[in-house]
Amino acid sequence: MENKGVYLNQIPGGGEITLLAAVVDKEIRPKRNGGSYLALRLADRSAELDAKVWDNPEAIAQLFSTGDVVKVRGTVEHYNDKPQLIVSRIRRCEPREYDVSDFYPASRRDPEEMFGELQAFVAMIRDDSLRQLIDEIVNDSGISDRLRTAPAALKIHHAFRSGLLEHIVSLCSLAVALTAHYQRLNLDWLIAGAVIHDLGKIEALTSTGVRFDYTTRGQLIEHVTLGLEILERHVSRLADFPLELKTVLQHLIVSHHGDLDKGALRRPMLPEAFALSILDLLDARMEQVCRTIFRRLSWLRTAPPKLSWQKRIAWHG
Amino acid sequence: MENKGVYLNQIPGGGEITLLAAVVDKEIRPKRNGGSYLALRLADRSAELDAKVWDNPEAIAQLFSTGDVVKVRGTVEHYNDKPQLIVSRIRRCEPREYDVSDFYPASRRDPEEMFGELQAFVAMIRDDSLRQLIDEIVNDSGISDRLRTAPAALKIHHAFRSGLLEHIVSLCSLAVALTAHYQRLNLDWLIAGAVIHDLGKIEALTSTGVRFDYTTRGQLIEHVTLGLEILERHVSRLADFPLELKTVLQHLIVSHHGDLDKGALRRPMLPEAFALSILDLLDARMEQVCRTIFRRLSWLRTAPPKLSWQKRIAWHG
Amino acid sequence: MENKGVYLNQIPGGGEITLLAAVVDKEIRPKRNGGSYLALRLADRSAELDAKVWDNPEAIAQLFSTGDVVKVRGTVEHYNDKPQLIVSRIRRCEPREYDVSDFYPASRRDPEEMFGELQAFVAMIRDDSLRQLIDEIVNDSGISDRLRTAPAALKIHHAFRSGLLEHIVSLCSLAVALTAHYQRLNLDWLIAGAVIHDLGKIEALTSTGVRFDYTTRGQLIEHVTLGLEILERHVSRLADFPLELKTVLQHLIVSHHGDLDKGALRRPMLPEAFALSILDLLDARMEQVCRTIFRRLSWLRTAPPKLSWQKRIAWHG
Amino acid sequence: MENKGVYLNQIPGGGEITLLAAVVDKEIRPKRNGGSYLALRLADRSAELDAKVWDNPEAIAQLFSTGDVVKVRGTVEHYNDKPQLIVSRIRRCEPREYDVSDFYPASRRDPEEMFGELQAFVAMIRDDSLRQLIDEIVNDSGISDRLRTAPAALKIHHAFRSGLLEHIVSLCSLAVALTAHYQRLNLDWLIAGAVIHDLGKIEALTSTGVRFDYTTRGQLIEHVTLGLEILERHVSRLADFPLELKTVLQHLIVSHHGDLDKGALRRPMLPEAFALSILDLLDARMEQVCRTIFRRLSWLRTAPPKLSWQKRIAWHG
Amino acid sequence: MENKGVYLNQIPGGGEITLLAAVVDKEIRPKRNGGSYLALRLADRSAELDAKVWDNPEAIAQLFSTGDVVKVRGTVEHYNDKPQLIVSRIRRCEPREYDVSDFYPASRRDPEEMFGELQAFVAMIRDDSLRQLIDEIVNDSGISDRLRTAPAALKIHHAFRSGLLEHIVSLCSLAVALTAHYQRLNLDWLIAGAVIHDLGKIEALTSTGVRFDYTTRGQLIEHVTLGLEILERHVSRLADFPLELKTVLQHLIVSHHGDLDKGALRRPMLPEAFALSILDLLDARMEQVCRTIFRRLSWLRTAPPKLSWQKRIAWHG
Amino acid sequence: MENKGVYLNQIPGGGEITLLAAVVDKEIRPKRNGGSYLALRLADRSAELDAKVWDNPEAIAQLFSTGDVVKVRGTVEHYNDKPQLIVSRIRRCEPREYDVSDFYPASRRDPEEMFGELQAFVAMIRDDSLRQLIDEIVNDSGISDRLRTAPAALKIHHAFRSGLLEHIVSLCSLAVALTAHYQRLNLDWLIAGAVIHDLGKIEALTSTGVRFDYTTRGQLIEHVTLGLEILERHVSRLADFPLELKTVLQHLIVSHHGDLDKGALRRPMLPEAFALSILDLLDARMEQVCRTIFRRLSWLRTAPPKLSWQKRIAWHG
Repeated sequence: MENKGVYLNQIPGGGEITLLAAVVDKEIRPKRNGGSYLALRLADRSAELDAKVWDNPEAIAQLFSTGDVVKVRGTVEHYNDKPQLIVSRIRRCEPREYDVSDFYPASRRDPEEMFGELQAFVAMIRDDSLRQLIDEIVNDSGISDRLRTAPAALKIHHAFRSGLLEHIVSLCSLAVALTAHYQRLNLDWLIAGAVIHDLGKIEALTSTGVRFDYTTRGQLIEHVTLGLEILERHVSRLADFPLELKTVLQHLIVSHHGDLDKGALRRPMLPEAFALSILDLLDARMEQVCRTIFRRLSWLRTAPPKLSWQKRIAWHG
Repeated sequence: MENKGVYLNQIPGGGEITLLAAVVDKEIRPKRNGGSYLALRLADRSAELDAKVWDNPEAIAQLFSTGDVVKVRGTVEHYNDKPQLIVSRIRRCEPREYDVSDFYPASRRDPEEMFGELQAFVAMIRDDSLRQLIDEIVNDSGISDRLRTAPAALKIHHAFRSGLLEHIVSLCSLAVALTAHYQRLNLDWLIAGAVIHDLGKIEALTSTGVRFDYTTRGQLIEHVTLGLEILERHVSRLADFPLELKTVLQHLIVSHHGDLDKGALRRPMLPEAFALSILDLLDARMEQVCRTIFRRLSWLRTAPPKLSWQKRIAWHG
Repeated sequence: MENKGVYLNQIPGGGEITLLAAVVDKEIRPKRNGGSYLALRLADRSAELDAKVWDNPEAIAQLFSTGDVVKVRGTVEHYNDKPQLIVSRIRRCEPREYDVSDFYPASRRDPEEMFGELQAFVAMIRDDSLRQLIDEIVNDSGISDRLRTAPAALKIHHAFRSGLLEHIVSLCSLAVALTAHYQRLNLDWLIAGAVIHDLGKIEALTSTGVRFDYTTRGQLIEHVTLGLEILERHVSRLADFPLELKTVLQHLIVSHHGDLDKGALRRPMLPEAFALSILDLLDARMEQVCRTIFRRLSWLRTAPPKLSWQKRIAWHG
Repeated sequence: MENKGVYLNQIPGGGEITLLAAVVDKEIRPKRNGGSYLALRLADRSAELDAKVWDNPEAIAQLFSTGDVVKVRGTVEHYNDKPQLIVSRIRRCEPREYDVSDFYPASRRDPEEMFGELQAFVAMIRDDSLRQLIDEIVNDSGISDRLRTAPAALKIHHAFRSGLLEHIVSLCSLAVALTAHYQRLNLDWLIAGAVIHDLGKIEALTSTGVRFDYTTRGQLIEHVTLGLEILERHVSRLADFPLELKTVLQHLIVSHHGDLDKGALRRPMLPEAFALSILDLLDARMEQVCRTIFRRLSWLRTAPPKLSWQKRIAWHG
Repeated sequence: MENKGVYLNQIPGGGEITLLAAVVDKEIRPKRNGGSYLALRLADRSAELDAKVWDNPEAIAQLFSTGDVVKVRGTVEHYNDKPQLIVSRIRRCEPREYDVSDFYPASRRDPEEMFGELQAFVAMIRDDSLRQLIDEIVNDSGISDRLRTAPAALKIHHAFRSGLLEHIVSLCSLAVALTAHYQRLNLDWLIAGAVIHDLGKIEALTSTGVRFDYTTRGQLIEHVTLGLEILERHVSRLADFPLELKTVLQHLIVSHHGDLDKGALRRPMLPEAFALSILDLLDARMEQVCRTIFRRLSWLRTAPPKLSWQKRIAWHG
Repeated sequence: MENKGVYLNQIPGGGEITLLAAVVDKEIRPKRNGGSYLALRLADRSAELDAKVWDNPEAIAQLFSTGDVVKVRGTVEHYNDKPQLIVSRIRRCEPREYDVSDFYPASRRDPEEMFGELQAFVAMIRDDSLRQLIDEIVNDSGISDRLRTAPAALKIHHAFRSGLLEHIVSLCSLAVALTAHYQRLNLDWLIAGAVIHDLGKIEALTSTGVRFDYTTRGQLIEHVTLGLEILERHVSRLADFPLELKTVLQHLIVSHHGDLDKGALRRPMLPEAFALSILDLLDARMEQVCRTIFRRLSWLRTAPPKLSWQKRIAWHG
């Protein structure tokens, strides 16, 4: 495997560098004084960068495609205050030469480990029908693979590989803590709700080359509708799944955004729906805020650093 | 069959009357100076009325239940400016003695005739898969009966027996006119959307005695979710129904309220979704406004009366 | 001590009863046919009830004042569908004859026990300056007594005696659970925020006879301003309290309502401010929802009952 | 007449071209390394394009003015990813050399044909006073010319030459269809409302060279006020025009935006005002949506193309 | 002239009284135990009161009509906690027997004195065209009488006889003070705006018997449209009134509510339009707030009373 | 002292100029074809300008720092349509060589004169406790200096040196005029409110080099909280300052933004709080609007120019 080299958010202010990067855009452009050059947009999981190939652009452009990972050598310059790379050598890499996770932003946690935790939470469901349903959903071959890799959003929160799974597992863990505090809450429903409330995102979002985007179905009917569809499909496979329980799950899905103007079809009406809606807000906001502050650090699992009070400010007003 | 007698919105200011009415509430209450009386709330499709039985209340109360239709004779009096009936004779009626439609507010149009029109509109769908799907939905035995009687809402518009069917047929007719005007619109999609956009209301609303109310499922997950469920169930019965077409139908259902804060999951994104959303608004508003102005008249099918400009005002600011 | 007798939310539909109740309103009114009667409004912690004294009203009215607790015997009747008590005997009670908590809605938990828990949470604060400040605040003689009895609101949530303390202790407990889950959060700040964010309510709300109401200061400047005032007063007594830490506490107070239109001066900008704001919403909503469903039960500390899914609905849409 | 040449939305990626275009901006600018050049912004009805004259800029700049149409030859190049024209020859055209409609975006329909349809709709008004009023308005010499050319908006919908007339005629046609469906609606009022509701736009908007813009009066008092002014002026010329009818017309003008926050002074209160307001929304939205999808095609009058479901999406969420 | 007697907001808790009042409602109603009585609603400028005539109701009812002023004697009783008058004698009064201003709430200021002040302000306008226009408007025979008596609103502010004139004169006075402070403001425009911005209210509101109500035109097109109509009519009578100046006046009318959702067609865009809009808000709010606090006192023209800080609170939160 | 030279908002389109300016940004950047240059951002109170030093950039860059004022000579050129200065000579200036007010936007009025007016207004307060408090606040050594220089905002209104003081003095003057008009208003409270309502801005905003910015405390707790803190500190130094009066002042501070969604904690509830809130809006809007129109002119103190009606438009819609 090739050495990744420096991440794009840490390139030096000048000098020559060698690194691996994914090609996001590729275009032949005319030079002002005649002739043409090859303009590239490179990316890895940390940032993006413009690059230019001045010599032999048409031939070089044949060597790789958008979406490929390339090994590139060049000199860092500044143009309009922004760094760019003047490329001297570039070649396409084989998949065995790099680690794909270097090019997607990805969860710091291991997907398999998180999937194991998820199954442990599902096993905590005491109602047999419900546990069977959720178990079959998460282990459905069309779902479990995508669940290991899907992000929870394009931009807002958990917008990285395995972000959805990280969010679900975090909600399950919060649900356990919450039912210890508010003992009348039904943990079965909270765990089931944590699993299915955003599950439609595995069909609403897709990876395009090295980035995430909406699918056409995601654009037209959103993850809520897609989640209801997944639920319907699996409920219909089980004999005698209680209609009341199905309705509760549908309510958890359609109410989890809390208010109509935020995308809910109904406001929460069950205690567990209120709890799920607020925990969802809490986990999304905590991930978003702390990522803003602690950026590339693995903030979830290490001890709190001694940050000054000013550095803890998430957004300037 | 017994004579219905005067409708409750037309009872005289005094004197003795005899009529049929449904019992909405029934309660034994103490008189101020000792003893008790039987307090009733009567209703027919036009209005409601309080009634009192002063003599022998406990025995009379045994003769009928809430939800029964009774034949009642009594004297009209006024109490706190509102009319009430002092009952002298009352007895329970058998179902063969009255026409249930006298006690529900109901569409002026014949349900069978409207259902026939609906089938003609469905037959206009040119795409075979889509026509087959919609045809099976409207002729599903669990749907077609309820579709003949369900209201379109509790209060806002078409809030009467067969109101949903009247609304659907009206939208289909408008869709035909609209595609004549905007020729690029896909009539297939508009007719299908007219049929399914509110279909979940057959499960969201129910008749309780002589009134409509939300079902528990209707409260928790709303007619949009219930409509998606009906669609999913019928699509799954057809082999190879195109996923694109299913997605379009789902989009028409989840976007027909137009804006998120009005209950849409997505804003309309297809021309037909915009058109359906605006036609839905138009038909609802026209029924609501004209009912407010023309009340008990059959406004849809007769020539316009010569109303003064002031009498055409729907709401005072 | 006298027997309280039946609570007003459980009075039978008729017959004679004897009970203790607080007098909320008292008025001599004319009878329609001449003469007068004494109209009373009685209350205990569960509900309110109208009562009438027909005989000797002027003399009876001298025997007690609004705000007194009385022992009353009478017959239950119904007027305009609402129960009322026709009083045959009534007398004023001495404070030693009743338990004041029977007349206020009150926390099910013992205030002293909760205050002990609060001090244990304060002791968990690791920063010496902050722990000293919060410790002096909660043990200030002008604060600690009122903190044991103040409600957290008039109507919305924890609107009962000791409701503020119950809310604070609940938030501290949630804060401990949350910092176990999100390890980068500063527990010191969360505990301090839990204690002071609503502390101004001890001056904003007051008990009037047997009910709570806003004070004039509460009306004009709200608990947020009053909380800032308490903080300022105690900080000024400590030499060299860090300005940064004071600013963080001020931010937690002014941002805890989350959005400007909900009463925040600033939106949360620190991770701990986001967390406090969402936990505050969660605890308020859980108390409010569960009280609506489980009413007079001690829902916080007992095992969940087997409620049907329909009975768990908090509000009908 | 000169050949227009290629439209600007279809210029090739390189090579030499000759075409007619309007001059929108014209400026002498310094070159970085000394000397100066002439920077132009060219436009036709389809798009805009930057152009540069490197040689003899001061002399060339004397040959034409902003707003003129020029015949230009040059080479297409790309600068910052956008095409620009390096001009080799340029000269001013006489009006007889070009068709002005090539430079404005314009309705695909013939204004005279549309004006004829408008007069046919006006002739359908049965009330003599109203028909006389509307007839005099549309044939007023200060109005009828501008009505043939005015756009309906700057950007939102029907934002092209004769767009207002196209919108009015479309609304009249929809009004006829609607009164066939809802027979109690007053067609006279709907046609009159279609004609006058937006008529103030002929004074609110103006053509500036080859583009539309707000007039100062349009900015300060909007088309609603200007429409009321036109109505007032023409009503005052007729003896005994009924005050009731004038008020209805004023109501149609001031309520047609539907809601106060969208620019209505009153919400609709007459059935015809509701209908006009919703038809106005429908026609605007259909033009806007279909233009977005079908762009330069004459979508209103040709058969629907077989577009894929994905291509029918108007806006991405 | 008869003695008015006590005002209705000051009637004693019992005993016999004699007073003059206007009849607002009049109805024969059945007694519960047979027979009938005459139910009246009486009013003067201070309050309203229910009254009952038990004896000879049909004959008594012939003696006067709704809208008449009557002299009435009777006994004050309480029914459902509200005072009512049991009438023993009642007769119709001739107009010469009472002062109509006792029955309308009315400005404390003399209309003629205020009209004189208005003319003095108009005379301050330096631009000849503008002064001539405003002068002709306020002295138009169809306007000046109604201007002396019209209220400025039904309920919100200056909702009393001559309230509109009081509001206009107050705004003129504030305009003079403001242009002394902000010397670049155009006083001509501010005075003209003060006069015409609400002038449409003389046609939008009407007196019905002893109360104010909306006219049908007021309901359908609001005072803004009616004010534009008045302006148009008077401008058209003047030769060569500058179009720019007319546009400024139209802008002041259509922008004076400040925001679209508060009834403005355009937001203010001229400094004078901003100033007028804010002064209008200020004067309305000051009248409303101070009336709430000082009620029946002539608060505008006397020295401030020594009210406690608590008594100065206008609204409880 | 050096000659300032031309202001940056008036630099010519070309040619050589010499002027003083503050250095806002300073950076060494690589040239495209090798080597480097020094890129500067210059500013004075009127505008900003880019400048480039092509020769000897590293050595030149040592001669001055960001925040310094420099004397610079160079040639004006245009790049991407924007002017830039190609520097031929540049040197650092000593503070005695320039007038700092040339580089900050600043009030046209003399701070000392305004401070004198402020003290005269404070002397008008009749209540001894209140006058003493406000007097001590404005003469507090930590406050009075900053009050002479602080802006009232970063961008919206009075966003210039001494803008806060100009705003306060203007409000005091308006308050005097207003209490002459509405005689029941308490002038004491209005003057005190004018002084303290925005006083927290002296700690919320700070000057950074030649620009204003938020302080960290300003970001986290806003000027409202900082104003309450200043009030609390000074009240605590006075023996027996009335709690009622303190509460009124707190109310004026927390309600002066008028509505919760604009940053108020409470809506105004006292007449003086309404008045202060509306005057604050008026003065802010007048400064903002007139500055937009009259820009660099001293609009407050000179006679109104004869501006055309079109030039008085503040914002285009």
